[in-house]
Parts: sequence; C-alpha cells; structure tokens
Amino acid sequence: MKKNLLVAQSGGPSAVINSTLAGVIQRALISDEIGRILGGVHGIKGVMEDNIVELDMYNTAQISLLTRTPASALGTCRFKLKNDPAEFKIITDTFKKHNVGYFVYIGGNDSMDTVLQLSKYCEEQKMDVRVVGAPKTIDNDLMEMDHTPGFGSAAKYIAASITEIFCDVVAFDIKALTIIEVMGRNAGWLTAAAALSSVNGGPAPHFIYLPEVAFSEEKFLADIKAQFEKTPYVLAVVSEGVKTADGAYICEQGAARSKDAFGHTALSGTASYLAGLAQAELGCKVRPIEFSLLQRCAAHLASATDVAEAKVLGSAALTAALSGQTGVMSRLLRTSTDPYRVEYGIIETSKVANHEKRVPLEWLNAEKNNVNEKMIEYLLPLIQGESVINFKNGVPEFYPAIRK
Amino acid sequence: MKKNLLVAQSGGPSAVINSTLAGVIQRALISDEIGRILGGVHGIKGVMEDNIVELDMYNTAQISLLTRTPASALGTCRFKLKNDPAEFKIITDTFKKHNVGYFVYIGGNDSMDTVLQLSKYCEEQKMDVRVVGAPKTIDNDLMEMDHTPGFGSAAKYIAASITEIFCDVVAFDIKALTIIEVMGRNAGWLTAAAALSSVNGGPAPHFIYLPEVAFSEEKFLADIKAQFEKTPYVLAVVSEGVKTADGAYICEQGAARSKDAFGHTALSGTASYLAGLAQAELGCKVRPIEFSLLQRCAAHLASATDVAEAKVLGSAALTAALSGQTGVMSRLLRTSTDPYRVEYGIIETSKVANHEKRVPLEWLNAEKNNVNEKMIEYLLPLIQGESVINFKNGVPEFYPAIRK
Repeated sequence: MKKNLLVAQSGGPSAVINSTLAGVIQRALISDEIGRILGGVHGIKGVMEDNIVELDMYNTAQISLLTRTPASALGTCRFKLKNDPAEFKIITDTFKKHNVGYFVYIGGNDSMDTVLQLSKYCEEQKMDVRVVGAPKTIDNDLMEMDHTPGFGSAAKYIAASITEIFCDVVAFDIKALTIIEVMGRNAGWLTAAAALSSVNGGPAPHFIYLPEVAFSEEKFLADIKAQFEKTPYVLAVVSEGVKTADGAYICEQGAARSKDAFGHTALSGTASYLAGLAQAELGCKVRPIEFSLLQRCAAHLASATDVAEAKVLGSAALTAALSGQTGVMSRLLRTSTDPYRVEYGIIETSKVANHEKRVPLEWLNAEKNNVNEKMIEYLLPLIQGESVINFKNGVPEFYPAIRK
Repeated sequence: MKKNLLVAQSGGPSAVINSTLAGVIQRALISDEIGRILGGVHGIKGVMEDNIVELDMYNTAQISLLTRTPASALGTCRFKLKNDPAEFKIITDTFKKHNVGYFVYIGGNDSMDTVLQLSKYCEEQKMDVRVVGAPKTIDNDLMEMDHTPGFGSAAKYIAASITEIFCDVVAFDIKALTIIEVMGRNAGWLTAAAALSSVNGGPAPHFIYLPEVAFSEEKFLADIKAQFEKTPYVLAVVSEGVKTADGAYICEQGAARSKDAFGHTALSGTASYLAGLAQAELGCKVRPIEFSLLQRCAAHLASATDVAEAKVLGSAALTAALSGQTGVMSRLLRTSTDPYRVEYGIIETSKVANHEKRVPLEWLNAEKNNVNEKMIEYLLPLIQGESVINFKNGVPEFYPAIRK
C-alpha cells in the first residue's frame, strides 16, 4: 500500500505560500509512490487535532487558481512545539491513522524547528515518515538561502505602493511628513525594498530606518528637519521593529504590548508613535501609514519571479522526501544577478531553524538612514514580472479556503 | 489671436484626476479655437501666484502615460476662495497676462464653488473667459450626477483589497476582529464599496458602518459579539466619518483634532479607537487597518470604466466652454444598469457647489449595519475593467510631476 502525503502551512501568510502548496500538489500528482494527497488544516495544530482534508481532487485550472491565491488556503497557525514527546506522539498518531509517509511543512524559521524536531522523533521511533520543509516568509530572514518565497511579492507591493503614494505626496506644496511602517520584527529586508520606488527615475524615500541600526529619536528629528530645508514633503519608511541602542522597541515608548505565541513582542504603532513625536517637535503635518496585512496578502501585485520560485521550492521539498531525505528544507541560491539565475537544492533544517538573517550593514549608506546600490542590485531581480490574476466582476477571483 | 486654455486640479488626489486632465488636453489639441495649453500648478493657488506651465508638448504616448498616472500631476491645493473681489482680481490678472479664454478646474464640490464664483465675477467684469468645472472626487458625493470620477477606482481598490485581506483573516482560527477604516467624511459611498468583496462568492464584511447612520458603541460591541458566536474572525468596515446620534465624530472620542482649510474636522484614527474599545470590552485580538492614501492613489487597481469616463468628462467640460458655456460642470447620468450605459452632459455649478450627496438609507439592510442588494447593483458597474499600467523594472511607470 502506497504511503500518503500530508502537507500543511504555518506562520504569517504570504502572497505565494499557496504557490508552494500548488508546487507540492503538482509534484505529488506525477509521483507513482504517493497514495492520497492530504492537507493539515491550520498547520501543525490541525495535524494534532486530526483536522485533515483530502487534496487530490485538483484539476489544472484549480491548481492555477490556487497558485495565484494569497494567504494560506489550508489555514495557518502560530504554534511552536514544546519539544515534548507527548506532542510528537499526538502528531505521529495522526500520521499513522492516515498512513502518512511524507510530511511537507511550509513555513519560516520557527516551522523549520518543527521539521527538525519532528524528523528526529520519527527517526528515533523508527517510523517510515520523511519530514521536510519548504521555506516561506515575507521577512526574508532565513539563513542559507539567497532569499525567501513571499519576500519578492511583498517587496513589489511595497515598492509599487510607495511609487503611487509619492505621486500623492508630491502633489501638495504644504510642509508634510509621511511615515510608512513596514513589517519586519528583527530584519529590515522588506523595509529596504521601499528604495525600489525610485528605479524608474521617480523619487526614493528620503529615509529608510531598519531594525539592524540603533534608532535615535534625535537623529530622526534632525534628518526630517534637514530634508524640510530641501523639499516641502518628506517621506520616511520605518520598520515596525526599530529599536533604541538599548534594544527597546520604539513602538513600546507609547504603550506596553502583549507577546505572541513565540514569545516575541507583538508590535504595532511605530509610525504612529513617530508621527506624534514629529508633530510635537517639528509642528508639521504628519501622516503615518501602516501597510499592515496588505503587504503580505496582495496577490494582485505578486512578483511573477516569486510565484514561480515558490512553486518550484514546494516541488523540490517533496522531491527530497521522495528521494529518502528527512529533516531538510528546499532552498535556492543565486548563481548570477545579471542575468538573474538561481539554482535549487536542499539544506539541513538544523542550519536554518531558529536563526535569522539580517541586512548587512555595508548595504546601507554612510549615515545608516537609507540603503545603497548594493541593496538595490540584490533586490531588483526579485520583484520582476507581474503575476496575472483572474479578475471576475471587477474583483480578483481566488481559491476558497480549504476546510473540512 | 487665439485665446489660451488654462487647466488646474484641486482637492484630494484620485487615481483618475490625470485621466480628466488628459481628456482636457486631447480635446484642446483637436480644437482650432485654442492657442496654447497652460496648466496651473497647485490649483487655484498656483493661478493666483502666476505659477503657470506650458502643457501643449504632449505626444500620444505621453498622454497615455498621464492618463494612467495617479494623483494630480499638476499639483493640487486645498484652498477655498473667500468670495473676495480682491482674490478674483488676482486670478483674472493671471488670466489676462496669459491671454486665457478658457479655464477648466478639475475638482469636487468646493472647487465647483470656485468655478461658480469665478464665472460670475468674469461675467460681471465682462471678461471674455469661460470658466467650467470637471468633476472629481473619490467620495462620490456630488449632486446631479450618477457617480463621480475617482470613485470607481477607489471602490475597486477597496473591494479588491478586502478580498485579499479576507484570505489572510480566514487563514487563522484565533478569535480576532479586523476593523478597516475607509475615507469618507460625510458620505459612506466608499465604505459601502467594501461589500463588493463578496461578488465572486467570497465572504462579505460582517458589518459596514456609514456616516449616514448614527453610530452606537453599544450596538457595535453587540454586533461583534454576536458574530463571534458564528465565526472566529470578524471583519468590520467603518467610515472615517462615523458619528454618534449627537453628531460627534467617533474618532474624536480619542483626541481633540485640528481643522482643515475648509473648516472640516481633520479625521483619523476611527478604526484605532474602535480597536481599543473592542479589545477592552471583548478581550479579543484586534487589528485596525487604515487604507489611507492608497485608496485614492492606487492607479494599478484603477477601474477601466472610471479611467475612460474621467477622460470623457474632461473633454466634455472643455467642449462646453468652447461652445460658449460658463459656470457649468460636465457630468454623467446612468441611463441603464444592465447593460451599463451612461450619457454625458453639463449642469450649472450652482446646483453642485457646496452640496453633498449621501447614501440613501433604503440601500442599507434593516439593521443599518450593512448594505443591501440595491447598493451592490449600483456599485458593480463602476469597478468593471482593469486599467493596464506600464510596469518597468517591476514597478509602475508614471508621468512625472509637472512643475516649472
């Protein structure tokens, strides 16, 4: 009897995590070794709760629609295993019940820790289950790969949106500061992508503040003030996770915040806080803008490069499992920037789990309040190509949420 | 000697105010009666300051790019005339200096008051200048026309974005409230457009709160609580301008606010305030999202219907001036919804200036916390068709700001 495949999605959604799911499904459909294709609803949490759905009913048109649908169609969770054998027992009981021989978990560095621990447990228990990961995170903070699926699309959304916001901002001749807040708890990759608004000759953000650089309120105010000497409008982009030299999140200056399931501080309101500061100290009109959920789910602005790579990485993860690998993650490396070329492979999840890749400081300008050409060169290939979305009745058509 | 044309843009930007400008320019290029084509930079303020640029250099490719560029390429202003003859004198001095015989002002109801007063002044002074308006406002609150240019594109942005946000929201099984704040000081048209997220069978916002209905915090909390009995996620869309039965803006519950140049209360933070309220009273995870500037400048999601209509309305305004009309505005009326058909004409600005068209209450549901099918039927034709944007290097290419 053939072993079945189980696939699940984890962590924050992205515009292309379903492209990776589609890649896994398409690879499974052409495999002789796989029986049924099953999905875990709401990630590892759903696996623990035996919340399992059939996935092997997709035709090509459905897979195409799924590929272009944002967020996790299978549902997601923010759930970190405690490395408790009791939890692994519950998970592997679901595997046994559904005759699972291959488990593909699509997620970020926390999810790769799940892949690592679960694969070890299965080996220790001498279970015939191969546990592999496929990478996903808009944060682009996974080690051992050039960039992560989801990042290019979020970067394209940010670059395109700032290009449009600039058209609005420069239309007024009133002294005004616009502060845009971008996601990124500890890594500033997405915030850096704001610089791409200028690649066609338009204006670039005057300032880009990343969490990799200690944030000083005094320097921030001095930067803004100096720019107001040159233009009536100032546009600054700030990562949600900027911190002082002491490591205190700027947004916490405003209010105490709760913690999420992974023990990270739940962030919000950095732009709002800085807007209040600038208004009080500089007396100018200030508009804080948070891109919020749209930066991670705007499939209509997905990068075609990102969509295609995400799909291949799903396929590559399952291919690794089929070839007998376990505890590994599919990854891509860049072999050339111009022309842009990547090669796909696998990496042990032990090298990825619980690590974070930060922005190298040599890709910032001398004042560390913007990026330089090295960052632009790195980012530019990742946002190339426009994903074609089906519009129906004037609104994007997406694959519906997959539930029991 | 032929008289020259002067055109200017006013008020908040939209995705298609440049389409109207392009329509004016194209109409002028095929007229034998017009000498030079001039633009006033930053609206009537620029006209008063003699901040005038040449516009008659455009080729077809340039006009096409301008048509698809968001916000006011000529710059805009928020400047209401005081009906002071001294101001009219300054404006008409600029007209005389540049031999202006036709002035087209693209804007909303405040700008139509400018057209009205200025046209009267020119007639009283027996000046050979025809002053006409072309409509523009994302708020859709102009009287005497079916809908306004800019509205359909903003509505499409809101509908498409909420469709995508819903993919993200339903991916989690954690009890969570998402509150989306949409522009609209006194009219709820744009907020109502959120309902279009469901036209392809996807979920519709659970609640839509418009400024036309007195807002009750108790009812809001009861609505959310009742929906949490049915789904773990609740999505509510709220107009920035919702007010209590006493007429107090909800956002003012949080903080005292400044006033803009027109004497309106400067609004922001309705969703943030309600998020705080819901968190305190219901104890659930809450995420407030403001669409902010993007709803009015996201040309990449512009409605092709809106872009085309905006262009015709620019052309129609100048045509009226050329035929000897003054003090009028171009407008469109709907002659049929299925198939969708409109007819173009003109209307006296006295019937438009300083009035506001509100959402009819019979287009809301019985509880007045959402819209009904009549609203969907009205809105749907306005978001049809996708405007094709030039992407270059992965980012939209736009017409640069036109300045001296």
